[in-house]
Amino acid sequence: MKTFIGFTEALELTLDHVAPGEEEELTLLAAVGRVLTADLTSLVDSPSISTSRKDGFAVVPEDLSTASRDHPIRLKLVGRCTAGDIRPVRMSRGEAVRVTTGALIPAGASAVISEEFCRVEDSTVVCFNTAESDRNILQRGTDVRSKDKVAARGDRLTPARLGLIAAAGHGAVRVQRMPRAAVIATGDEVVSPGMPLPSGKLYASNMVEIGAWLSLHGIPFRTAVIPDRPQAIREAIQRGLSETDVFITSGGAWGSEKDLILKVVADMGWTGIYHRVRMGPGKPVGFGLLDSRPFFVLPGGPPSNEMAFLQLCLPALMKMMGLGPSVFPTAAARLSDHVHGERGWTEFVHARLKKSPAGLLAVPSRVKSRLKSMAEKQSLIVIPEDRDEIPAGEVIDVQVLTSTVGPAGAAS
Amino acid sequence: MKTFIGFTEALELTLDHVAPGEEEELTLLAAVGRVLTADLTSLVDSPSISTSRKDGFAVVPEDLSTASRDHPIRLKLVGRCTAGDIRPVRMSRGEAVRVTTGALIPAGASAVISEEFCRVEDSTVVCFNTAESDRNILQRGTDVRSKDKVAARGDRLTPARLGLIAAAGHGAVRVQRMPRAAVIATGDEVVSPGMPLPSGKLYASNMVEIGAWLSLHGIPFRTAVIPDRPQAIREAIQRGLSETDVFITSGGAWGSEKDLILKVVADMGWTGIYHRVRMGPGKPVGFGLLDSRPFFVLPGGPPSNEMAFLQLCLPALMKMMGLGPSVFPTAAARLSDHVHGERGWTEFVHARLKKSPAGLLAVPSRVKSRLKSMAEKQSLIVIPEDRDEIPAGEVIDVQVLTSTVGPAGAAS
Repeated sequence: MKTFIGFTEALELTLDHVAPGEEEELTLLAAVGRVLTADLTSLVDSPSISTSRKDGFAVVPEDLSTASRDHPIRLKLVGRCTAGDIRPVRMSRGEAVRVTTGALIPAGASAVISEEFCRVEDSTVVCFNTAESDRNILQRGTDVRSKDKVAARGDRLTPARLGLIAAAGHGAVRVQRMPRAAVIATGDEVVSPGMPLPSGKLYASNMVEIGAWLSLHGIPFRTAVIPDRPQAIREAIQRGLSETDVFITSGGAWGSEKDLILKVVADMGWTGIYHRVRMGPGKPVGFGLLDSRPFFVLPGGPPSNEMAFLQLCLPALMKMMGLGPSVFPTAAARLSDHVHGERGWTEFVHARLKKSPAGLLAVPSRVKSRLKSMAEKQSLIVIPEDRDEIPAGEVIDVQVLTSTVGPAGAAS
Repeated sequence: MKTFIGFTEALELTLDHVAPGEEEELTLLAAVGRVLTADLTSLVDSPSISTSRKDGFAVVPEDLSTASRDHPIRLKLVGRCTAGDIRPVRMSRGEAVRVTTGALIPAGASAVISEEFCRVEDSTVVCFNTAESDRNILQRGTDVRSKDKVAARGDRLTPARLGLIAAAGHGAVRVQRMPRAAVIATGDEVVSPGMPLPSGKLYASNMVEIGAWLSLHGIPFRTAVIPDRPQAIREAIQRGLSETDVFITSGGAWGSEKDLILKVVADMGWTGIYHRVRMGPGKPVGFGLLDSRPFFVLPGGPPSNEMAFLQLCLPALMKMMGLGPSVFPTAAARLSDHVHGERGWTEFVHARLKKSPAGLLAVPSRVKSRLKSMAEKQSLIVIPEDRDEIPAGEVIDVQVLTSTVGPAGAAS
């Protein structure tokens, strides 16, 4: 097991040891945000017929070549077509057929004149404008042709992509299954949220934050709060083992006498990959494989717990979901104030973002409460290993944390 | 009912007629992304006692004022404290107590020396460094003091905010209830996804895209595909009326003879607010109140349907969720190519985003397939009413659509 490695090496080692899992089939409405495991081609032409883009009249363009407000042309109204009605209709020169948006274009017509340029008098349509060939006609297959590729393996299913896939005739898709996580908070001092708090104890706030991140990403998980007893920790790990793809523990990462997690997983035969990383916060983080499942040993201190989760564990989960490992978008921002770290270490600094006339401003947190600083941050400033400080005024890429949307509801 | 109004007026009218609904109580892990309906204050001090930040030894700082590698100081090891153990321990000058991270600081001690600066010899601790007062001690209440405000009414519950609320002693929170949507696709030509497609019909791709957007935002919804019969449309609207907070229909917005929605809702006694907006795509959109519930009549053409949903309906849903109406973050981007609209109209243009050394580049879509253009867009260029084109090279704020995360899973 490597120890005290640089952050970049830790991230690479983590990603080298995780992979996307099985696939599953889901209906389109259940698949938003998921990643396709195979290319998808269209089963149909869409539109399946050539239709009108407007409410108006199907015409022969040549009939209207001289039509204008001053010289209207009169056509004989010989029928009507509405959307969804596919009786074949035929018309000839000198004739017009009433069409609504989405209606089949009658045989013999090759343009639609919008109703705003017409007036109906009994069975005559009076036209005040020309209508060149193809005018206001949506040709069969314009949006999708049968056998067209409409999505590729690895594509994330956005709402608009799902619309295209629906139009292409698919009712379900094969996607990457979500990894299932076990989140285990350890420590005699840890109390479940909302329970009475004896003196000296603290609430499992790390577990809540990690669970909330997993929820945001649609990752199913179970949680447990376990005291500092090796047997209890072992049982919590083994519980539901066959339904767990990734373990995330909080607390006991440091490796001192009361830090039992590393001893327990070693006894259970894990393969340790690394322990302790030159990152701040987050240094005591450990990572290995238990029964070939990724196992993250996160530190118990809230800022360390969060940063190890966001920078090492969440990228691994993204890869397991079939996505690239970038968790957060980055944006260029000017530092409002200097930040300092330590050469050889990668430091992550909480910051708020302000829009200014000169562009985005990143304001490093000076909040003393660790938990309030975490709750108020909107972005993370990254001080790389080769720098020990970044001066005020420098423009750097920050990780933007605030652009995420809420959790998903269920279709019913 | 106003008609043919500008986009800005349409958005203002929409927001003026919607409001956040009832509140509900949720456990912390179910509340991610939700909006608080009341300020929250802390019920406890966190930490609840003063504890060690390090594995090391609790000491009296004065004892070590001259300690160094060359002149180590020897202290008598008189006990140990571990995290979660709250037996009162007392120590005096010349003594040290072994402490783990999170352990209660013994009475009489006022600093912790990290174990890396110590060596234990039987019952003696040999110290190689000084430890000024408060060194490595996390004081009671540092993160949160009892009665501190930890979150405000209107705050969106991010993962880190939920961690803070957990640490403050809350196990559940009162939040804005999600609006419940009914999504109704109308048209004789519309077929549910995955069913066989008769010639002339098309799949309900609009319904799938809207459902996917609602899922991403955690908004529960029901869907229906209804033919062009007034009674069927009326029944679809009335079905589950008492459990519906907002109606979204697709198709039949134009108002021609087959466009029945507006007639049906008028018959049902709705209050029409506007119909037809100077926006492209999206012009035929209508909006009103049915039984005081917001009712959106979206056009059936896919680009119009999507844009009216994203720019008018989704902002209304955001307000109903207790959020600000901004749906998408904006970013400054340089136009790679000119775009043109029409003066007096607000035009929305699909664009892809490219990172370039000179900053973000917005590349307007030239894809002929409407559905592919929609699926491939990463941002929207907005051409405001007072411009009829924006030249290549101009830097404008674009709406960024790609930074959303996936749907939520459930804690188990």
